[in-house]
Amino acid sequence: MTSENNFGALNYQELVRRYAADLAAVEAAIADNLASSNELLEAMAAHVVKSGGKRLRPLLVILSARLSGYTGSGHILLGNVVEYLHAATLLHDDVLDDAALRRGAPSANRVWGNHLAVLGGDFLYTTAFDLLLSAAPREVIRVLCRCSLDMIDGEVLQRRWRNRPEISEETYLAVVSRKTASLISGCCRTGAMLSGGDPSLVEALGRFGSSLGTAFQVIDDTLDYLADPARLGKALGGDLRQGTVTLPLIHLLSREGLAAEQSRIRLLIERGEVDDAGIADIAALIRDHRCGESAMARAREFAADAQSAIEPLRGSELHAALTAAADFVINRDL
Amino acid sequence: MTSENNFGALNYQELVRRYAADLAAVEAAIADNLASSNELLEAMAAHVVKSGGKRLRPLLVILSARLSGYTGSGHILLGNVVEYLHAATLLHDDVLDDAALRRGAPSANRVWGNHLAVLGGDFLYTTAFDLLLSAAPREVIRVLCRCSLDMIDGEVLQRRWRNRPEISEETYLAVVSRKTASLISGCCRTGAMLSGGDPSLVEALGRFGSSLGTAFQVIDDTLDYLADPARLGKALGGDLRQGTVTLPLIHLLSREGLAAEQSRIRLLIERGEVDDAGIADIAALIRDHRCGESAMARAREFAADAQSAIEPLRGSELHAALTAAADFVINRDL
Repeated sequence: MTSENNFGALNYQELVRRYAADLAAVEAAIADNLASSNELLEAMAAHVVKSGGKRLRPLLVILSARLSGYTGSGHILLGNVVEYLHAATLLHDDVLDDAALRRGAPSANRVWGNHLAVLGGDFLYTTAFDLLLSAAPREVIRVLCRCSLDMIDGEVLQRRWRNRPEISEETYLAVVSRKTASLISGCCRTGAMLSGGDPSLVEALGRFGSSLGTAFQVIDDTLDYLADPARLGKALGGDLRQGTVTLPLIHLLSREGLAAEQSRIRLLIERGEVDDAGIADIAALIRDHRCGESAMARAREFAADAQSAIEPLRGSELHAALTAAADFVINRDL
Repeated sequence: MTSENNFGALNYQELVRRYAADLAAVEAAIADNLASSNELLEAMAAHVVKSGGKRLRPLLVILSARLSGYTGSGHILLGNVVEYLHAATLLHDDVLDDAALRRGAPSANRVWGNHLAVLGGDFLYTTAFDLLLSAAPREVIRVLCRCSLDMIDGEVLQRRWRNRPEISEETYLAVVSRKTASLISGCCRTGAMLSGGDPSLVEALGRFGSSLGTAFQVIDDTLDYLADPARLGKALGGDLRQGTVTLPLIHLLSREGLAAEQSRIRLLIERGEVDDAGIADIAALIRDHRCGESAMARAREFAADAQSAIEPLRGSELHAALTAAADFVINRDL
């Protein structure tokens, strides 16, 4: 019934068009389920959840559920919940980082204060699990609970490596795996679990999501040095301002023949003294020594692993759709 | 088999002795289940969870489960989980309040910083639900999820009424009902639910817990003005230092014939200018005008309602045990 050629032409816009009804239902659920006895919590949570974002996570839930044969409506609630879980971590991270901007708009902690932003994150986490408990299979809830634990763990690991230029690529990838890849993998796995999908499918989609999520974060971290600040919606070098050393910089710090520059940068990082001039200097070195390119090459390796995870599905609409979603993630503008 | 006289003599120490094995099992679970891939999270969570506390919540779970006929071991996990949920709110509250002391020891935010304390709270919340998902009936998990939502909601409500001396007794009790009574009620309800307890028993224990929890918090708030600071483990007037107006002060602010004092106090509160001298002044007025006594009288009314909720159980060991637990809560030293 389905051939590779039928689905080979799928691109992200077409994907979003095909699943527009499901995406709109998720969007409506996201808004409706924020209702609380407390209008302040509602307003704050809504500020974060509705402030844009690509809705990549709900889309992956929808594709994984619908294209593995799920015919119910539980994927709408699930798509809603993964966005709440994601937003809850953003709220707490912004409090922890004292971030001023989120997606180009004032961050919730700046609008409502750190106090309420911590509670707003708690509200989103707990509402997410309350919704899951109302309808989702227990195994699905367990997977997402583990994803939440991973995200917390990844955030702590990241903080332990703040201002430490000696962080290895391996440690960096361990952070990424927990902070970002785990939930994206969880979206794909739980989507497939809804259809009672066979374990090998769930496993394949989980690996697809994990590798795609890693590629996604590596690209994000690279854009943080190389993007147009206006399009990024925040200042460049935001990670390093917080003392977080990501892949392009890890590559720069391991390039040969740059001992003097590297010593200077290491000292800045260790002392937590990276200012605008430092960022400009480091971004220029990253550009000159093509460390954005080498980081992107690493991202592409993960993207390739994501593709190979779903290779057994080749020829199916699920394969074509996930490929289109992955292409979109990988080919964002540098 | 059981008569009122058999159990009439039960006191708290006897209760703790009878259920020593279960309480020890809860204590062991509390320690064991903190294991994380992240030793920093473990250490922080352990600091909070193990820093003492009366373990009232686990005890209520144990009594409600065992004495309503439950013969399994799920009450141990449940007793562990309610203490994690309680500790998670303490961690986040301390971050929000920038508290220096908790139960006489340095608070986690002072030892590890606000950043890690927020994540430590997230870790405890999420670990609690992960444990519940491993074994507890879904309805039990749902009740505790709702308790968590109540606690968040109560904290926000309390913050909205900060530095506002016009807060009514009714609003104060709405805060207490969500912040404290909800989880204590949840302990009693979920304990009884484990035994597949009939709905009227679950309902009765829920009302018992709710009223007892309210009495407990009103007494706590009264001790905050009248206790011996050394025994309290923190400075007196801590609530008011944060701008939180509790029942003894609400009573003081509504006493007749104190217009001048009340204006002065209202201004201090509105301006957030309550210092040590202000606390001493207000505590003296609360003592002189017997507002501690009137607040305690209100607590005793809630305690009486707790008793009347379990009146249908009179003659049972469950009735005697809950009565002993309630007596202990109510008769703490003033």
